[in-house]
Amino acid sequence: MAMAISKSLYLEDLRVGQAFESLSKKIELEDMLGFAQAFDPQSFHLDPAAARSSIFGSLAASGWHTAALTMSLLVSSVPLAKGIIGLDIQLNWPYPTYPDDFLQVKAVVQDIEVSSTKLDRGVVTMEIETCNQDGKVVQHAIAKLLVFKKQP
Amino acid sequence: MAMAISKSLYLEDLRVGQAFESLSKKIELEDMLGFAQAFDPQSFHLDPAAARSSIFGSLAASGWHTAALTMSLLVSSVPLAKGIIGLDIQLNWPYPTYPDDFLQVKAVVQDIEVSSTKLDRGVVTMEIETCNQDGKVVQHAIAKLLVFKKQP
Repeated sequence: MAMAISKSLYLEDLRVGQAFESLSKKIELEDMLGFAQAFDPQSFHLDPAAARSSIFGSLAASGWHTAALTMSLLVSSVPLAKGIIGLDIQLNWPYPTYPDDFLQVKAVVQDIEVSSTKLDRGVVTMEIETCNQDGKVVQHAIAKLLVFKKQP
Repeated sequence: MAMAISKSLYLEDLRVGQAFESLSKKIELEDMLGFAQAFDPQSFHLDPAAARSSIFGSLAASGWHTAALTMSLLVSSVPLAKGIIGLDIQLNWPYPTYPDDFLQVKAVVQDIEVSSTKLDRGVVTMEIETCNQDGKVVQHAIAKLLVFKKQP
């Protein structure tokens, strides 16, 4: 189920299975090319002809652009009280992100671990899927987040 | 040892222990703020006062900016013949990236696995460390990369 984002969530407010869903956001060709030029200037991200003969089949976004867009969607949909602070992330890109795709993020709490040494915090594991408009998963991530307690 | 980047490397050209080292690149405050505004608009990445009372202690870059800069340094220092194509990445950020840091990337081949089903390729596991000017590791990654063979 999707959560409203009007409140700020502490460790005590989270439970395993809790789910968050973002709005969807369009990735524009111009932004895709700008990101690739700055951070991932490889031919399959910049040149349509080269991309056609690559494993992507046509011009595709840098996976790091997909990751960055995923972060922006998380920031607006997972209202952790002191922010979203990633400790450790495992990610892969099962399907490319193409220009004009609409991306949406779903995050589900998989595990909650209270710190035994730092009494004000814990580690929350979330499965984070980024899907395109056809429901294809363009990024799958398992993220360990630092989450603070309301009552240390 | 560092490799020259004048040639393009296929699977057959790689060996376990082979190392690559990038040049270093400065992260400018203005770019840091621009990236955070676009992809990770949280107070500790945008507001110096808020950052001081956060776990970062002062304004810090989004981890995704560090990841994107790492990619740009890899593209210019790891000359794989058909590009750097990540399949699966595990990453964490042991220390923050701060404005005006100089980042440098070191990548070491940990494992080479020839595909048993697709004869033109294999999977190469690399350990990728991104360090700042003081040698502190700001990002640690284990990446599985798709690498093509010269002779399928």
